[in-house]
Formats: sequence, structure tokens, C-alpha cells
Amino acid sequence: MEFQITHKDGSTGARCGIIETARGNIETPVFMPVGTQGTVKALTPEDLTDAGAQIILSNTYHLYLRPGHETVKKLGGIHRFMNWERPVLTDSGGYQVYSLARLRKITEDGVTFQSHIDGSSHFLGPKESMAIQRALGSDIVMAFDECTPWPAEYRYVENSVRLTTRWAEICLNEELEKEQNLFGIVQGGMYSDLRERSAKELVKLGFPGYALGGLSVGEDKETREKVIADTIRFLSEERPRYLMGVGKPEDILEAVILGVDMFDCVMPTRNARNGSLFIDGGRIVIKNAEYKEDNSPLDETCGCYTCRNYSRAYLRHLFMAEELLAYRLNTIHNIYYYIHFMERIKNAIKDNKILEFQTEFYRLRN
Amino acid sequence: MEFQITHKDGSTGARCGIIETARGNIETPVFMPVGTQGTVKALTPEDLTDAGAQIILSNTYHLYLRPGHETVKKLGGIHRFMNWERPVLTDSGGYQVYSLARLRKITEDGVTFQSHIDGSSHFLGPKESMAIQRALGSDIVMAFDECTPWPAEYRYVENSVRLTTRWAEICLNEELEKEQNLFGIVQGGMYSDLRERSAKELVKLGFPGYALGGLSVGEDKETREKVIADTIRFLSEERPRYLMGVGKPEDILEAVILGVDMFDCVMPTRNARNGSLFIDGGRIVIKNAEYKEDNSPLDETCGCYTCRNYSRAYLRHLFMAEELLAYRLNTIHNIYYYIHFMERIKNAIKDNKILEFQTEFYRLRN
Repeated sequence: MEFQITHKDGSTGARCGIIETARGNIETPVFMPVGTQGTVKALTPEDLTDAGAQIILSNTYHLYLRPGHETVKKLGGIHRFMNWERPVLTDSGGYQVYSLARLRKITEDGVTFQSHIDGSSHFLGPKESMAIQRALGSDIVMAFDECTPWPAEYRYVENSVRLTTRWAEICLNEELEKEQNLFGIVQGGMYSDLRERSAKELVKLGFPGYALGGLSVGEDKETREKVIADTIRFLSEERPRYLMGVGKPEDILEAVILGVDMFDCVMPTRNARNGSLFIDGGRIVIKNAEYKEDNSPLDETCGCYTCRNYSRAYLRHLFMAEELLAYRLNTIHNIYYYIHFMERIKNAIKDNKILEFQTEFYRLRN
Repeated sequence: MEFQITHKDGSTGARCGIIETARGNIETPVFMPVGTQGTVKALTPEDLTDAGAQIILSNTYHLYLRPGHETVKKLGGIHRFMNWERPVLTDSGGYQVYSLARLRKITEDGVTFQSHIDGSSHFLGPKESMAIQRALGSDIVMAFDECTPWPAEYRYVENSVRLTTRWAEICLNEELEKEQNLFGIVQGGMYSDLRERSAKELVKLGFPGYALGGLSVGEDKETREKVIADTIRFLSEERPRYLMGVGKPEDILEAVILGVDMFDCVMPTRNARNGSLFIDGGRIVIKNAEYKEDNSPLDETCGCYTCRNYSRAYLRHLFMAEELLAYRLNTIHNIYYYIHFMERIKNAIKDNKILEFQTEFYRLRN
């Protein structure tokens, strides 16, 4: 995997780049739609390519439990399984073990937990996570980390950083397929000195990319942005930086300005299913009565399939009637919005106008 | 509306034809996917045209209650509302009032009922049904009938036939848009003499097409086929005949042989959402464990999007994980199966081989 920085903003940390993978190039900054169970909810791969998706994320934890990584491998790997030819990033399962599984028990080797599906008992550690992601055949593999809860005591986080570095080293020593690339994940909670320590330890080990984990766990925006800024300066300038699980368009914009290259978040897909639809300046809550006879598209300026073909009134009708098509049309729009938002950010960086873009973005909010 | 019969089978009642409407031609025998609430569940209009759908059905009862026919009219009519340019047939609401609504009270003028959505009180009669369907702007409008329950006493059905004829005459006298075509609906329960009476009375009134209603309400296959045969001979040879709400592929095949031209049924869409998928010779229950690692398509011989791109194992995974994509991919297949099944029937009629087709159809069942 190669990462070429094609443009650096003069006055901020923002940058554009190209990640070259065996399955094609990824232009950064990039948003990765989340396909938890081997499908981006409600969309086909064609819907995703039509929206401009370059890479999607899928989940080790979920695919391990169902249908099982060995099954996915037998069926030709994650790409063939879900009929998606572009790159896939799989997370390590670390985050899901903490957010979804029951009866967790952490040892130096990994985590014993019960499946959220059927209560069955499982063990996941760095070696297991690498074996699973190898079987899945993803292009970018994430190291197995402990996602520190928030708030957490300093000593707890300090030990968690130690464990995460230890596990990252184990992950590095596991064999992956030739075309797979392993990213390290920085932890350290909201303690800047522990973030620094975690970043330095991982950079010393040496990864082709680095992620910031353990954010968007309940902390406020200022805290998050301080942690990002305090972490990024210890990460290699020439490697992609991935902010995991973040977030709202404004969060992404701020992180890009701080120097982040990659993002994923369930927000566009989950909000779509709840009828909350992104437009510049905010969101449209499609169930609102004001849209009952509104024959205009969701967003006049949007080029997505939904906005080109359907009225707000029809989208409201589908949503109120709980029709399956509602979830698809809404998701198409929100994913397009996010991906197109990244396009506009990229163009603003290339034009050395990211701060003007930022000003205009917030002006529309008021 | 014109109906041209293009081919008649020599030894059965089967025939091919073309219904010419203002929104395009419909080749018969035809299957009409059901789009109850202004959407064929889980599909876009493009999914439907890709599957070869020539016309869809939508429901007066549902659209009247939500979003309201006046709303649909303001938004440009049913076609523009749902972004579907080909013909639409709307049923009259008669069947839904009996199958869905609560606290029905029938008078000579129509039916008072409570909405299944919010319990609100409504009145629907022949005049109201015509006004609603006129506002919706469907291409084929169905007369408002009483759908007789089954089993029912002779005297009850006799009165019901009287009411249905009376209402059909009222419907005929209501004004519709120029391009709209009103079909009459034959009732009469399972009593052949009442079916004959109903058919003759409607033919005397004169409609551009006739439907057989009140079937597929619990009666056995033999009874249904006898009623169809006993009714059809009293319907105009030169007008399209529509068997409402029927049914399984074998039911459709038998009815075509008896001389029916048009069909609708929720079976392909509803079964799809339940994971029951049509193939020649029967159905595949996709949740079955035998498909867990089955990398072959649902049906090797099928040309639908689902079969061209996904394995049984992936379809099973989506279904087990309750992923929204499961419903769409399954529905695409089942609708394609039904429409392609009609294509094969049509070709068999044209080749004077419908009885051979019938023999082969049942041979694959064993």
C-alpha cells in the first residue's frame, strides 16, 4: 500500500492524498460507509458506487459471529461474498466487544465474551482478530485494541494503552495475505500524555497507517478536537490517519482541518433509517407534517438518485407507511451527501480555501 | 383502451393479446406486481422495469387513507408521485374494506368502516371509489363491489350480486378522466348460477374489461377453477379478463388455460420478504442450513439481478441477519420469476404448446 500526499493546505493541517491499494486508489479525505454485516444497510454495491463510495468498512466481530469468517473465506472472501470489488477495511472487533458483547473478561491475551446474538461464549485477542481478518480478505486490517470507556481513571487508561501496544505488536507478527495492510490504533482516552505515549509506541512499531480510536464515546466536541490535535502531531506525516467512528459533518470537517484523512460513521445510514436527512445547514426530519404536500426534492442542489426522482412528499409518505423503499431512498441520499461533502472538502483543500469552506459551512447553520 | 387478441390456442381457452393504453401497451397474459401503498414493497420503479413489469396495481383503500387521494392528485397523480411511467391499475377498495377495515356497516349506498391505521371513521361507496380513483389518475379503474365472504349462504350472495351490479352501474355513470378505463367485477361466490347472473348483468352494462372477484378467499383449487370456467364463458370474448388476487404459479397457469388475461397477487413480494423464493419445481426456503455455504446462485437458469450477482449463502446470511437488502434481493428475484413465467406462458401459447408447457410444469414438481 502506498500513500501519496497530493496537496497540503498552507494554513491548516488539511491535506489531500491517494491511498493505492491492490483493489484501486482511494482519494483522501475519504468517508467510508459502514457495512457492518457485509452489507451497507439497505444498499446494493451499485447504489454505493453510484454514490461515489471508494471503500467501505465491515465488522470483524459481526462477520466472525455470523456467518463466520471461515464461511466467508470458503465463499471467496468478503468482496466476492457481498459483490463489492472496491477496497474494504475491517475493524478489529475490539470496539464491538466493548459496545455489544456481554459478560466480557479481559486478560493479557484478549477478551472472553458472550455473543449478543445467542449468548454463546467466545474469545477474541490480537491473534484471533488477525486470523479472522485474514480469512475475510479485507484490504485494510485494523489492529486489535482495547477501546477505553469514557470517563475512565488515569491508571485504567494507562494500563489499557500498555495492552493496546502489546497487542499491536502481536498483530504485526501475525501473518496476513500479501495485499493486506495493517493499521495501528492509538488509544489513551482523553489524556493527552497517554495519547502521545500510545502514538509514539505505535509509530515505533511502524504501520502503513494509523487510526485514532476511543473517540466519539460521549466526550464533548472541544475535548475530542484537543485529543485529535494532541495525537496527530506524533503520527507520521506521510501515513494515512483514520479517525474511527466520527461523525457529524462538522466533526469531520474539523478533523480534516487537523489533518485526518479517513472517516467512518453509522450516522448517515442510521439517521436515514430514522428519517433524518442531511442537507447543507442541517437536517430534514422527513416525517414532519410540513412535507406532506411538498413536491420539491429533498435537496434542490443534490444530484443523488433520490433527489433526482422523488419528492419530499413521497419520501414522507413512504416513511410514515413504514415502506422498505423509504430506508433505501433515504440511505442513498445520506450516503451521497457524506461522500459529496468529502468531495467538496477535497476541492476546497486543493483550491487552498478550506477555511473559507469552513466559514461558509457554519454560516449556513445559522 | 383497445384490446387486440393476437393468438388463440386451438385446444384450450388460452390466448395472447395486447392492451393498448395511453401509457403504453401491455402484452397479455400479464402479471401485475402489487404496489399497495404507492410502492411495490422494497423495489424502485427501475427494479420493476428491469424485471419486465408492464403494469402495476395500487390500492384505492390504502392511498385514500394515507396520504389521501387529494394529496396524490396535488402531487401530480399516482404515476408522478411514485415515479412510475407505465400503466397503473387501482382496485376499488371493496376488497380491502372487507379484509382490513373494522366495524363495517353495509348499506345500499356503500360501506361505513373504521381505518385499520387509526380507527377513524370513513364511508366508501361506488361514487366515492370513482372520485378517489379519478384523483389518483390510474389507467385502469375497478368498479366498487362487495367482495362476498366464503363460505356464504346463497341468499346472502344473491343480494351481494344485486348490490355489485347496482354499484357497477353507478360507477359507469360517474365521470372519469378521458384516458381512464373502468373494469367491472363479477361476484357470485362459489355459486355458478350467480356467477352467470353477475357476468351477464355486467356485460349488459358494458365495460372495456371484466374481472373475476371474490376468489382466492379460502376455497379449494377445484372449486376455484370450476367457478372461473363457469364465469368466463359469459364474459365477452373480445375484452380482457382479470382474475383478482390469484395466485400461485400453478393457479395462474390453469387460469390462463381457461382464458384469463390479467393477474395480480401479493405472493411473490410477500413470500420474498419471508425468504420463500420461487424456482421451477417449487420454492427455496433460504433460511435452511443447507444453503449456509452454497456458493451457487438461487437459480442457475434465472437472469435476474439477484441471481446474476449473489450466492444462496449470501442471501441466507442477509436473511438470517435481518438485513434490509435481503428483502430487496429476494423481491427482485420473485417478481422476475413471475414476470418471466408469464413470458414463457405467452411463448408457449404462441407456439401452440401450452399443454406441453403445463405437462412439463407439473413434471418438475415431482
